[in-house]
Amino acid sequence: MTLSSFNNLDKEAAAKELFSCCGSKKWVSLMMNAFPVGSGNALIEKATTIWYDECHDKDWLESFTHHPRIGDKKSLTEKFAGREQAGVASATREIIEALASSNTAYEKKFGFIFIVCATGKSAIEMLRLLNDRLKNDRNNEIRIAMGEQHKITLIRLEKLFEDFQFLKMSQVTTHVLDTAAGRPGRDISVRLIHKATNEWQTIAQGVTNGDGRVSDLLPAGKILLPGIYKMVFETGNYYSDQKIKSFYPYVEIVFQIFDDAHYHVPLLISPFGYSTYRGS
Amino acid sequence: MTLSSFNNLDKEAAAKELFSCCGSKKWVSLMMNAFPVGSGNALIEKATTIWYDECHDKDWLESFTHHPRIGDKKSLTEKFAGREQAGVASATREIIEALASSNTAYEKKFGFIFIVCATGKSAIEMLRLLNDRLKNDRNNEIRIAMGEQHKITLIRLEKLFEDFQFLKMSQVTTHVLDTAAGRPGRDISVRLIHKATNEWQTIAQGVTNGDGRVSDLLPAGKILLPGIYKMVFETGNYYSDQKIKSFYPYVEIVFQIFDDAHYHVPLLISPFGYSTYRGS
Amino acid sequence: MTLSSFNNLDKEAAAKELFSCCGSKKWVSLMMNAFPVGSGNALIEKATTIWYDECHDKDWLESFTHHPRIGDKKSLTEKFAGREQAGVASATREIIEALASSNTAYEKKFGFIFIVCATGKSAIEMLRLLNDRLKNDRNNEIRIAMGEQHKITLIRLEKLFEDFQFLKMSQVTTHVLDTAAGRPGRDISVRLIHKATNEWQTIAQGVTNGDGRVSDLLPAGKILLPGIYKMVFETGNYYSDQKIKSFYPYVEIVFQIFDDAHYHVPLLISPFGYSTYRGS
Amino acid sequence: MTLSSFNNLDKEAAAKELFSCCGSKKWVSLMMNAFPVGSGNALIEKATTIWYDECHDKDWLESFTHHPRIGDKKSLTEKFAGREQAGVASATREIIEALASSNTAYEKKFGFIFIVCATGKSAIEMLRLLNDRLKNDRNNEIRIAMGEQHKITLIRLEKLFEDFQFLKMSQVTTHVLDTAAGRPGRDISVRLIHKATNEWQTIAQGVTNGDGRVSDLLPAGKILLPGIYKMVFETGNYYSDQKIKSFYPYVEIVFQIFDDAHYHVPLLISPFGYSTYRGS
Repeated sequence: MTLSSFNNLDKEAAAKELFSCCGSKKWVSLMMNAFPVGSGNALIEKATTIWYDECHDKDWLESFTHHPRIGDKKSLTEKFAGREQAGVASATREIIEALASSNTAYEKKFGFIFIVCATGKSAIEMLRLLNDRLKNDRNNEIRIAMGEQHKITLIRLEKLFEDFQFLKMSQVTTHVLDTAAGRPGRDISVRLIHKATNEWQTIAQGVTNGDGRVSDLLPAGKILLPGIYKMVFETGNYYSDQKIKSFYPYVEIVFQIFDDAHYHVPLLISPFGYSTYRGS
Repeated sequence: MTLSSFNNLDKEAAAKELFSCCGSKKWVSLMMNAFPVGSGNALIEKATTIWYDECHDKDWLESFTHHPRIGDKKSLTEKFAGREQAGVASATREIIEALASSNTAYEKKFGFIFIVCATGKSAIEMLRLLNDRLKNDRNNEIRIAMGEQHKITLIRLEKLFEDFQFLKMSQVTTHVLDTAAGRPGRDISVRLIHKATNEWQTIAQGVTNGDGRVSDLLPAGKILLPGIYKMVFETGNYYSDQKIKSFYPYVEIVFQIFDDAHYHVPLLISPFGYSTYRGS
Repeated sequence: MTLSSFNNLDKEAAAKELFSCCGSKKWVSLMMNAFPVGSGNALIEKATTIWYDECHDKDWLESFTHHPRIGDKKSLTEKFAGREQAGVASATREIIEALASSNTAYEKKFGFIFIVCATGKSAIEMLRLLNDRLKNDRNNEIRIAMGEQHKITLIRLEKLFEDFQFLKMSQVTTHVLDTAAGRPGRDISVRLIHKATNEWQTIAQGVTNGDGRVSDLLPAGKILLPGIYKMVFETGNYYSDQKIKSFYPYVEIVFQIFDDAHYHVPLLISPFGYSTYRGS
Repeated sequence: MTLSSFNNLDKEAAAKELFSCCGSKKWVSLMMNAFPVGSGNALIEKATTIWYDECHDKDWLESFTHHPRIGDKKSLTEKFAGREQAGVASATREIIEALASSNTAYEKKFGFIFIVCATGKSAIEMLRLLNDRLKNDRNNEIRIAMGEQHKITLIRLEKLFEDFQFLKMSQVTTHVLDTAAGRPGRDISVRLIHKATNEWQTIAQGVTNGDGRVSDLLPAGKILLPGIYKMVFETGNYYSDQKIKSFYPYVEIVFQIFDDAHYHVPLLISPFGYSTYRGS
């Protein structure tokens, strides 16, 4: 469908399409006020602002209920999920079972299912991420899950409208290189944490891929407030998994976001030394 | 006095000498049990163990009451203080006044006077340190102050016994180099923090000197428990004092102490990048 | 034209098309033996092998004579040049004149015109590169120029055949980040030098662009022999142009190429410190 | 002997003492003109200036003939040698034999014996250094050997005059830390090379000790001319000895000496990355 043919749909049909992208009635209703929109970028901006600034716990939780469980075979065949969760498809039975089991533990702890933008993630990465997120408290976890929901929403919007593509990437990116081994640092858990007025709030979580990157830490186009942020890399686990002694149980990099520019926060790690810098 | 002539003193005279090194009755009394001691090193080890493991808040606070105030001219002339606080002597009137004023604020906040091992510190360093420590909560501050008391005790013991010298240095040391400017990073506030069972406890605080070092972060010979520690460097202030924009509001390095070896945790800093490693 | 329609051309027409990509008779003649080719990748591989391994100084020099001069307005309008040398178009008159003057000096010194793959380069970058290359001896310069000729040949082949695109990038890439300034290190001259049996031979030269990169150091698909190579970065000029004192007159990084993998050799530079690592 | 009692010696006796420190007649004769000297520092400065600026190949070679061979048991018992070459004493028979054999090869190649300031060096370090220096050409090797001779001269002068001590260290120092292993990089060959008018001249060579340092790269008090220098670290051998694959066959750091200050040029190395900075 093109954007203009969407603009010509009747309200009910249009709302139904949007609801298939994000299952929150409030988000859909506020989005409907934004139509007709002139461009894909305007649509994305609106979708993002409404989700982050005008929706709340209740709306986010509602949207979570409209998702298939990862690893639940029946759900995987439903609309969108087949492609979005392709990483799982090739996973071994063992990993599927671990995913299913952690999924159950997750739902029991938080009261909602595990939401993750599975695009581009291997089953191993997803399992690690699921287990990492299981350790969060509920407030942080809702915040992370709603960010994942938004990444999914954007991908669905991009599929819905055949005539536009995102050109934007995550405002904050990272890259881990293991300078002792001479290769990317993969399967390292990463958290992005914001220093809010009274506390540190985890706002995104990821696992480095085979190239040492977390490419979708934030939803494309989401601009963070200027302020103090922290990236935490679980390098201790990375080395202990390899039976290598390391000086650092984890690495924390506290940095400032000054504006809406791109912030690349890479880590060069070896067992007894590390470097970071503002990349480009 | 030699160690052996000390060993021959009567109990009362010996206790009086020890009390002039550290004004805690409990510490003196437990130390008396350790005499006669065969060597300076044994004495230092005993002095340290008793102070850290067998004394408590009450004893530490008692010792603080036997100190002259820094910047209090009358007190500076008393025994020991003249040399220990030599850094203050050359300070300008302005800094003396700032020290006196912060000293008053400190005493008002914590209920005891500011204890610091002034040896080798300039008045500027001491003023920065005093203002840094003013921000602590009382529990952390008592812990830091008792460490400072112990550094003072050791220096006094070394002076008391003409026949031995410390050869040990702080178990944890640091060094900051500014790789953009090509010189040591001086006047940077540094904290050493221990991950205790339930919380992070600040155990030492210092300010880098003209060589970029904090040489006496811990009392000589004090061995920390193996575990997780954190060094925090206030590099953001260092750069903002110079009107230089920096990416990092501060730098945190979390590391592990495995054993009783020496741990050197240096920082190479530039405004938009930094490195650390286990030094030697 | 598609590859298959090319395969159906008569010999003379086909040779004429190839000659418009690279003006060496020997290269064209050897290429003709390779037709019909089944794929773009096979074509590129053949074009590269013939150029590097079967052609020699005489052939390379011949190809150079079929080029417009950069900055020569008449030539710029000829086939290909308009787009390939687009960077020059927007240059100021002053830079054009400097280019023309250095071009003359170059031709006088070497006896052939300055060959450079201008795609993506600003006039400033080209001027710096031209002046850098003016310092080479003739043997090194021929080697560099024939590499540039090959980059141009590849771009022309890509344009000629509408149905394929290069997916490969330079086997050796670099990236300079200025960690004191927090931005890419731009306009830095870079040389790639090979340790041949008896001497160091410069094989490619470039200037970092606005993102701190030299993206086309080698022609796409050119695989270097395993061995010892050196990247030299003229960081001293970079800093002296900015009136910043620096400890390093230039930075040399000697590294090994083990296989046909991609080698990323980045540089993190500040005036009094630098880092490098094998990137990805 | 004190400096003043030396000043009172008759000329012949004084010259004999100096000749026992450095066996060059020209050096002794020019030194005699400097007496009486008022201080140890003045003496050292004079000794250094004469040796570097007024003596030449002929004088340096003459001094080499007055040395015992390292590993030559008879010579080791002669005056000075017993203490200066203490590192050899504890060496295994195997190393002694390797030293003797390389010593013979050295003498055969260069026509003079291997001169090295053995103080503080283990037999292994000396063997590595001897084998490294065997690879030099004769001009570079004479330059290095005369620097070693001067280190020996200074140590002998210090022993001769009971009332002064060097406080100065090598103007250029280095320190190698292995950030993958978390320990000093030991037994790494290091060369200091000067960019003279027309060529690069090796002016000093060393091997890192157990602390990763080469503490006596230059004779104490020797001030280098401002200019461009290069440190080369044989890190490739360091890793290949440990069967670790490394990206760098060696590391070259080109730097500038601006003045007579101390220059610390450390290297943080891991197999696939390294850093350097101006240390302090």
